[in-house]
Amino acid sequence: MKIVIDAFGGDNAPLEIIKGAALAQAEYGVDIILTGDEEIINKCIKENNITFKKLEVVHTTDVISMHDEPTSLLKAHKDSSMAVAFRILSEGGADAFVSAGSTGAVVVGGTLIVKRIKGVKRPALGTMIPSVDGKFFLMDMGANAECRPEMLVQFGIMASVYLENVENRPNPTIGLLNIGTEDTKGDELRQETYKLLSEAPINFVGNIESREMPKGVVDGVVTDGFTGNIALKLIEGTASSLFKMLKGAFYKNLINKLAAAILKKDLYKIKAKMDASEVGGAPLLGVQKPVIKAHGSSDARAMKNAIHQAIIFAEKDVIGTISANLK
Amino acid sequence: MKIVIDAFGGDNAPLEIIKGAALAQAEYGVDIILTGDEEIINKCIKENNITFKKLEVVHTTDVISMHDEPTSLLKAHKDSSMAVAFRILSEGGADAFVSAGSTGAVVVGGTLIVKRIKGVKRPALGTMIPSVDGKFFLMDMGANAECRPEMLVQFGIMASVYLENVENRPNPTIGLLNIGTEDTKGDELRQETYKLLSEAPINFVGNIESREMPKGVVDGVVTDGFTGNIALKLIEGTASSLFKMLKGAFYKNLINKLAAAILKKDLYKIKAKMDASEVGGAPLLGVQKPVIKAHGSSDARAMKNAIHQAIIFAEKDVIGTISANLK
Repeated sequence: MKIVIDAFGGDNAPLEIIKGAALAQAEYGVDIILTGDEEIINKCIKENNITFKKLEVVHTTDVISMHDEPTSLLKAHKDSSMAVAFRILSEGGADAFVSAGSTGAVVVGGTLIVKRIKGVKRPALGTMIPSVDGKFFLMDMGANAECRPEMLVQFGIMASVYLENVENRPNPTIGLLNIGTEDTKGDELRQETYKLLSEAPINFVGNIESREMPKGVVDGVVTDGFTGNIALKLIEGTASSLFKMLKGAFYKNLINKLAAAILKKDLYKIKAKMDASEVGGAPLLGVQKPVIKAHGSSDARAMKNAIHQAIIFAEKDVIGTISANLK
Repeated sequence: MKIVIDAFGGDNAPLEIIKGAALAQAEYGVDIILTGDEEIINKCIKENNITFKKLEVVHTTDVISMHDEPTSLLKAHKDSSMAVAFRILSEGGADAFVSAGSTGAVVVGGTLIVKRIKGVKRPALGTMIPSVDGKFFLMDMGANAECRPEMLVQFGIMASVYLENVENRPNPTIGLLNIGTEDTKGDELRQETYKLLSEAPINFVGNIESREMPKGVVDGVVTDGFTGNIALKLIEGTASSLFKMLKGAFYKNLINKLAAAILKKDLYKIKAKMDASEVGGAPLLGVQKPVIKAHGSSDARAMKNAIHQAIIFAEKDVIGTISANLK
């Protein structure tokens, strides 16, 4: 198993990316290819005493940033660390791809360099989101701002395959994010999608209201990329604002400070659980090879987790199963 | 000032509705008209020692429920307590309307009995939502699942007038809910709306991401009713799930329980702040008279607050200003 990693994508690149790759190799015994400036990578490895049993570096000096137009990956930034990694994947030089770089560029590279699975209308990004007792999968979280019913149904099928194989949830329940539970609720897109999902070969359990999502009542939630992106960031924003309010209460006076100190460890656990970077990377489903978009703020541990995800993604032949189920 | 109140709308009707009306009369000195079954209302008043200085009851035995088709307000339930209250408002028998009943029916009654302000494409529901340091206004929160750019621009103008007059926020900042801050982000609806909002006579500050909303960075957020409804319920759901997780930590062991007991009062304040029913009712903007939809779970205090909101709504001539600003 060989994983190609964009060493220069993400807020903490390249150090944390390289560290994460080394951790993953030590733990899962996979081959690693890093793309990016060889001199900087080697310097980074040496200065931080990072050890690889075996490492391949494919040299390139260009990087695509968050501020670059995603499609520039194909022309102006066709020699960026991300574009090079995508080509290695696409040409069979690796079994899976991980980058913590620009989300838009990952979608462009996946769709246009790796290319779609035959029959897939649009690839989409899914992600696991923390719930009260576990996690649920939300898809699309932002690859497609505008969706048609046929796309949403495919998201449902792809999410179901991913959940069953990578997240180990047999016969996963899939809900359609909507503003009411009845099949007549929502806009035309939801009403039409509801019908199509009911006929799809998945465990579709109907509409789900956003209020219910964080309770973890279903394994997977299907929505368009606009709503999905709003939802994902709103959960993060609401949790972070609430923790800010709690902090205010904890520092209010000496006695509160003492009480909060006792609870600190358990509260920290909850905060860590709600932190999106803890739950792993986002698979881009619908393309011909396993592509994982790691969180932009990934540290070494988050990268290691994202690489682990990529390994299972490749091992379980998720793509073959998606392809078969779409027929 | 005369307020007509649907005494049979909401989960706690009629007792809490009647109590709230009595509290509002005592505090704000307004005349109250209650619609609903006169015998039950009088019995309720007597048994609970509720006192009104002056009260008018308009008798009707029918009620429209949450499960009824909203448009049934016009035919099958045209004699329901809500429909009768709407007609009293529309015919000039009251200055403002409050109901804690079916949201869909309030939108139908406002739009088709009270009727739209000339030039308004679609009335919309706004609501104040708690943020870290205060509250922000979200509109539309669910009246229009499908929107066009011209509608969203009017929501922005109406929200601005409401915030300035009823919420006392001079020159309120208005943001467009979107999946990125640049004007090229989002679907066609957002891109087109962005342009129109930039030219509107309001303090439009550009796109706002959902992650920023709970921080209270703008006074008002404009979005379509589908996304608005998802956002509103997701904030509630995330907050409620987090409190459930906190509760788990607080009851974990004896020492945690003791520490939590010290913090209890301050934590309760935060929980109460996040509770939607605390922030008042939702104005239906764009119709010819002041209409307030109180939260379905309203108790007497929430009803009193919603009635207070209706009074300011009527006093400040929000409708005249909206009408002038839309020209």
